[in-house]
Amino acid sequence: MLPPAAERLVHELERLPGVGRRTAQRLAFHLLRVSEQEALSLAEAVREVRARIGFCTVCYSLAEGELCGTCSDARRDRSQICVVETPSDVVPIERTASFRGLYHVLGGALSPIDGVDPADLRITELVARVAAGGVEEVIVATNPTMTGEATASYVATVLRGMTRVTRLASGLPVGGDLEFADEVTIGRALAGRREL
Amino acid sequence: MLPPAAERLVHELERLPGVGRRTAQRLAFHLLRVSEQEALSLAEAVREVRARIGFCTVCYSLAEGELCGTCSDARRDRSQICVVETPSDVVPIERTASFRGLYHVLGGALSPIDGVDPADLRITELVARVAAGGVEEVIVATNPTMTGEATASYVATVLRGMTRVTRLASGLPVGGDLEFADEVTIGRALAGRREL
Repeated sequence: MLPPAAERLVHELERLPGVGRRTAQRLAFHLLRVSEQEALSLAEAVREVRARIGFCTVCYSLAEGELCGTCSDARRDRSQICVVETPSDVVPIERTASFRGLYHVLGGALSPIDGVDPADLRITELVARVAAGGVEEVIVATNPTMTGEATASYVATVLRGMTRVTRLASGLPVGGDLEFADEVTIGRALAGRREL
Repeated sequence: MLPPAAERLVHELERLPGVGRRTAQRLAFHLLRVSEQEALSLAEAVREVRARIGFCTVCYSLAEGELCGTCSDARRDRSQICVVETPSDVVPIERTASFRGLYHVLGGALSPIDGVDPADLRITELVARVAAGGVEEVIVATNPTMTGEATASYVATVLRGMTRVTRLASGLPVGGDLEFADEVTIGRALAGRREL
């Protein structure tokens, strides 16, 4: 139905998350319609991102070169480390502009069913960072899911006695509606209630 | 917040239709997570599509080489030409598998407000194809919108007396609900009612 090169592009676009055949076709037609320069900029950006970006040698978030933007920023507070599952989890936390410490990206969450053991995550590296001294608090910001909670417990266990370990609060999302909140979330919100 | 190369990729992805900043970030992280080969295949497919694909010299739909797949297919019925606005409009019609003729892609629809005149569309080329003989029917399949309808009327006018010109039926979409149909569509469905 489409010329082979267009069919190949649709096929490659379909591999992107959340992109079905219709969307892939729409994107492919878009890339055929825009200026040659605009289409090639996208291709070049994909190549470049793979050529240039690797992991920060300290915190394992995305970095061009040895260190990520956070680790190389002298103004960041080195006494706090926020532990997240993936490099993309750094973005929403940075967006809050209320955390000024460093990060540590584990590279996933413990999940024995999927064969993810502590050895598969960068936990030894986290322990080494804390053992090197100067870390007053480790804030565990793994996802509030089964695997994220298991990972948080494990991290707390291995760091016990080395530093203070805290966990992001669970509760009602701001702007949410009590009526539509699930019972586990409401249970957590009750358990974590604060004095007014 | 992201390393420069990742930021550039997010920026390029954001230019795609229907892709906002969040989706662009999700796609960028995906392209960083998958195998290098998978990411580079996408970049290569974009390059290739721009290098190889042009317009069919007969019908102006997408083609690798001189002729598109339809125009070069000897089994297609050369007595029918289906007129569409854009190359992407060929896909849904081919999907029906109920049209065996050729196409003619106008390259848009008449819209004086946007400065699109008949001279901007491939109407002269359509007239030439019909004048060359052998065309028994021109089916106008421009969109059922203001500009698409204006284009259909214009095409019918210029082809008057040369061949039979028909228009796709307007009416209730199959599987649709009368209750949720707009009054213009229901009006068209009434006007175009058929004997049972």
